Amino acid sequence: MYRSHTCGELRLADAGREVTLAGWVQRTRKMGGMTFIDLRDRYGITQLVVDESASPALNEEAGKLGREYVVQVKGQVAERSSKNNRIPTGEIEVQLHSIQVLNASVVPPFTIEDDSDGGEEIRSRFRYLDLRRNPLKKALELRHKMAHEVRNYLDAQHFMEIETPYLIKSTPEGARDFVVPSRMNPGQFYALPQSPQTFKQLLMVAGYDRYFQIVRCFRDEDLRADRQPEFTQIDCEMSFVEREDILNTFEGMCKALFKNVLGRELEGQFPRISYADAMNYYGSDKPDIRFGMKISELTDLVKGHGFGVFDDAPYIGGICVSGAAEYTRKQVDELTEWVKRPQVGAKGMVYVRCNADGSFKSSVDKFYGPEQLAAIATAMQAQPGDLILILCGPRKKTQEALGTLRIEMGNRLGLRNPEEYAPLWVCDFPLLEWDDETQRFYAMHHPFTAPKPEDMDKFFSDKKEDLEQVCANAYDFVLNGTEVGGGSIRIHDAQVQKRMFEVLGFSEADAEERFGFIINAFRYGAPPHGGIAFGFDRFCALFGGQETIRDYIAFPKNNQGRDVMLDAPAGIDQVQMDELFLESKAPVVEQ
Amino acid sequence: MYRSHTCGELRLADAGREVTLAGWVQRTRKMGGMTFIDLRDRYGITQLVVDESASPALNEEAGKLGREYVVQVKGQVAERSSKNNRIPTGEIEVQLHSIQVLNASVVPPFTIEDDSDGGEEIRSRFRYLDLRRNPLKKALELRHKMAHEVRNYLDAQHFMEIETPYLIKSTPEGARDFVVPSRMNPGQFYALPQSPQTFKQLLMVAGYDRYFQIVRCFRDEDLRADRQPEFTQIDCEMSFVEREDILNTFEGMCKALFKNVLGRELEGQFPRISYADAMNYYGSDKPDIRFGMKISELTDLVKGHGFGVFDDAPYIGGICVSGAAEYTRKQVDELTEWVKRPQVGAKGMVYVRCNADGSFKSSVDKFYGPEQLAAIATAMQAQPGDLILILCGPRKKTQEALGTLRIEMGNRLGLRNPEEYAPLWVCDFPLLEWDDETQRFYAMHHPFTAPKPEDMDKFFSDKKEDLEQVCANAYDFVLNGTEVGGGSIRIHDAQVQKRMFEVLGFSEADAEERFGFIINAFRYGAPPHGGIAFGFDRFCALFGGQETIRDYIAFPKNNQGRDVMLDAPAGIDQVQMDELFLESKAPVVEQ
Repeated sequence: MYRSHTCGELRLADAGREVTLAGWVQRTRKMGGMTFIDLRDRYGITQLVVDESASPALNEEAGKLGREYVVQVKGQVAERSSKNNRIPTGEIEVQLHSIQVLNASVVPPFTIEDDSDGGEEIRSRFRYLDLRRNPLKKALELRHKMAHEVRNYLDAQHFMEIETPYLIKSTPEGARDFVVPSRMNPGQFYALPQSPQTFKQLLMVAGYDRYFQIVRCFRDEDLRADRQPEFTQIDCEMSFVEREDILNTFEGMCKALFKNVLGRELEGQFPRISYADAMNYYGSDKPDIRFGMKISELTDLVKGHGFGVFDDAPYIGGICVSGAAEYTRKQVDELTEWVKRPQVGAKGMVYVRCNADGSFKSSVDKFYGPEQLAAIATAMQAQPGDLILILCGPRKKTQEALGTLRIEMGNRLGLRNPEEYAPLWVCDFPLLEWDDETQRFYAMHHPFTAPKPEDMDKFFSDKKEDLEQVCANAYDFVLNGTEVGGGSIRIHDAQVQKRMFEVLGFSEADAEERFGFIINAFRYGAPPHGGIAFGFDRFCALFGGQETIRDYIAFPKNNQGRDVMLDAPAGIDQVQMDELFLESKAPVVEQ
Repeated sequence: MYRSHTCGELRLADAGREVTLAGWVQRTRKMGGMTFIDLRDRYGITQLVVDESASPALNEEAGKLGREYVVQVKGQVAERSSKNNRIPTGEIEVQLHSIQVLNASVVPPFTIEDDSDGGEEIRSRFRYLDLRRNPLKKALELRHKMAHEVRNYLDAQHFMEIETPYLIKSTPEGARDFVVPSRMNPGQFYALPQSPQTFKQLLMVAGYDRYFQIVRCFRDEDLRADRQPEFTQIDCEMSFVEREDILNTFEGMCKALFKNVLGRELEGQFPRISYADAMNYYGSDKPDIRFGMKISELTDLVKGHGFGVFDDAPYIGGICVSGAAEYTRKQVDELTEWVKRPQVGAKGMVYVRCNADGSFKSSVDKFYGPEQLAAIATAMQAQPGDLILILCGPRKKTQEALGTLRIEMGNRLGLRNPEEYAPLWVCDFPLLEWDDETQRFYAMHHPFTAPKPEDMDKFFSDKKEDLEQVCANAYDFVLNGTEVGGGSIRIHDAQVQKRMFEVLGFSEADAEERFGFIINAFRYGAPPHGGIAFGFDRFCALFGGQETIRDYIAFPKNNQGRDVMLDAPAGIDQVQMDELFLESKAPVVEQ
């Protein structure tokens, strides 16, 4: 061992002890004949001190230490004269007898401080230096702790962690697979799994009735901001259960995480909301319920007053922004421009200002008199001082725009406290989505998701309207407006599965080709089962109070799917290409 | 929940309780107007009973149940008249009121019993059915428990589990990488990691001084028996430590596993042996020390007696097989043929039989008289009743042949009890291996392995003989003759690293191209560090008392690297090939 203690360990009670520490030089400074060194390791920072008059040679050595040098020092713990109560070791310092440089360092390209002076690009290239900074270290510590607590909870609930393969078979449905050419099987490819969905269902068939895995998944998608080509899931499946059992089990897991990781006891059952209500009241299938500002539908109330825009609209709805009546005309105009951006997509916005004196002011005063505005305010439970914002258009699109506006107003008014946690289950999603272009239904989740038992008649009906109304026995776990988990009860009945393929327009041969071996497995006694998967990267980020996942992944890729530290992906040599029986048709790019 | 209890849970104390069970029909049998059903789930088997006279309709239903049907039953727990003390539920049975078939099953292609009637091939294709069998379930339960205990131990020792990427960059050195074409970066490829070696060293540079990960690794090698293209490692690294610290830490982990998984307390320190001694005494770098039968070198003793074969041999050595003097001439001849097989590679074998009466009989009586045979027996500490087997030839090759013979004799004499555990550290491996063909040194482990501190002078010497004698600061963990773990102290000193590249014949440009970014990382303050990795699949198999790993992997691949259940790898369609800018040059194979 190069050390007797870590840099986060010594306290006043250790005064007088001879210690050996090792770590990185955070900074050195000279003051009144003394040299002070902040020595850093994973556990904290300890102040070292050299007295020039007592040991001029040692002082000279200390003076040569640069930032990020790795040193081993020996000395005696002493009480500090000026204490620092912001760090746990702030009451002591170590008076040095010796300094040994274990490794020098060239000057790092950015400062290793909580707020670094380095930009995103350079910090990514030198990720191993960025990882020395406190915020990233805290993020990875949090991630380790969360994984450990998840495992402890699920193990205690008799779940078995079972590793499923990463070299599997490409499936034509869904997002793009990454593929892996096989040298031993020329012309053939493995695929990397988008999730272990098939395997966990096979494990249920195999009788492993409580499975989980913290597992890497891969998706070769065009990357949006904050998506990674490889990501981690907490993947779970249970047999002989109904929806209620799954929700209770994983609500328990979430509560254990809140308690053991964040020290928060969440009381009572997590709220549940149907997909329909989520859309109607929040304009989103992942509502942030840390604040109210629910959407109210105004379609019937405001039609027929000669305002053509409303009269022609299939749907009119609004949100009531508490205390925002103070918004100036300019601010409202700016908001109107904001909702007209393509990302929100509204055609315009109507406002009703509920003045403090009980009067109203609206952009559509011409069509709606004070009584009518009062009726709108009443319908929306608006109070004097509130600002009502109204959008109209096709139902779903308008609800989504209102949802986006609601989140924006929540942000502007500081209603989305990252240290407050509002978990929520969203249930009863539609099972099927009709696609006009291809004139067929698609599975909203995947073709193994079961319809709700009470909708089984509709599921076997031939009418499109009936099928559109069938709810899936599916559920999402939403935290602070972010979908963190999702799952469903799976179909275990052969007749229901057959009907599903029929509804999706697969011939028996199609279904056999695409899903043959799982259909076959289901012929050998499949138990009723269901499961859920959590996006672990995002779960960690939310627990850390952050919106982006990148800091919670040790070595993430950028938005082009590149690891800029490794400079991967990269070309491979012709020998390797030949061994794989592959030829590149990629356009030659000038570097 | 489809059940109130599992099939492994009910005891005599539950007699009289109304229960609901769900599971698979293991078997049904009729006896004296009663139908008995063995119902199985992950937790055990419970006997169900239907009385024909009391409920003829239910009895008819019971009669229709086939093997592996999934059923839910309700009934009352009752004491059995004829108890079965081989299973924990053997004192009770459940007298049924109702049976609901949750899913029928077609007849499985092999029996779901501890000893199945199915061959390897069919069981692999129906892996989800094979996994229902007890031996595989026990194997996966053991694996889950081992992973959980490893994590608990390392977490308690302040190790952080940090996930490293699976989509990385191909490195030209070492075994073949699997590669993954990048659609977003035409003509470029990711590689799947053979191990997280680089990343764990970067994490040490980043200051995460105790890292571990239970992680998948990938190697595109021609597969030998019992190798998998993807396998799992317990991968670990520590900073500010010396070899002793690493051995102690992971000896602690192994002891915790023995205790918590197998209920065995291993006393004292694990034995340690140098690579040289391992070769000299066991003819193997992974000795099985559950039994003695050490190799004795006889070169000096037996030369110069006119037996040309020995006189010309650079090395002569033997093993003494206790109590095997009874071996007949025929048995010895058979053994001689056995050592001459190419897998062992000896040219012949000499025996000395130590008769019970103190006399000797040898195949080389012509050259060695009784005194000389007695001297050999004395040198080998042979007792009357023992059989001495002697091989000769080049030193290393002959030692290895003796090592193989020793294991064979251990097997034949039943000295290798799978329920006995003999852990061992092998240390002081040579750092470098000279290759005559390319006339250069190769790193025996990898180019970041440190020389032992005391060999540093030799390491900087220009003489080939000196360099050949340099020991690596490396160590293997061996259990029952199998290498389960291996690691080393890494080079953290820039001068030593530079010398290593020089010794390996890399120019600075070469080294920069191959290892550039890690060399660069080491310029920013690399701490002294080292680590170890354990082959988790094999570790589990050994704990389960098995030699093959396949049962300890839920979905393994066969010796051709194929998943026969999935039928992977497989062709992909032209659209996907085009998107990846790839063309196949694979020979067209008639299917």
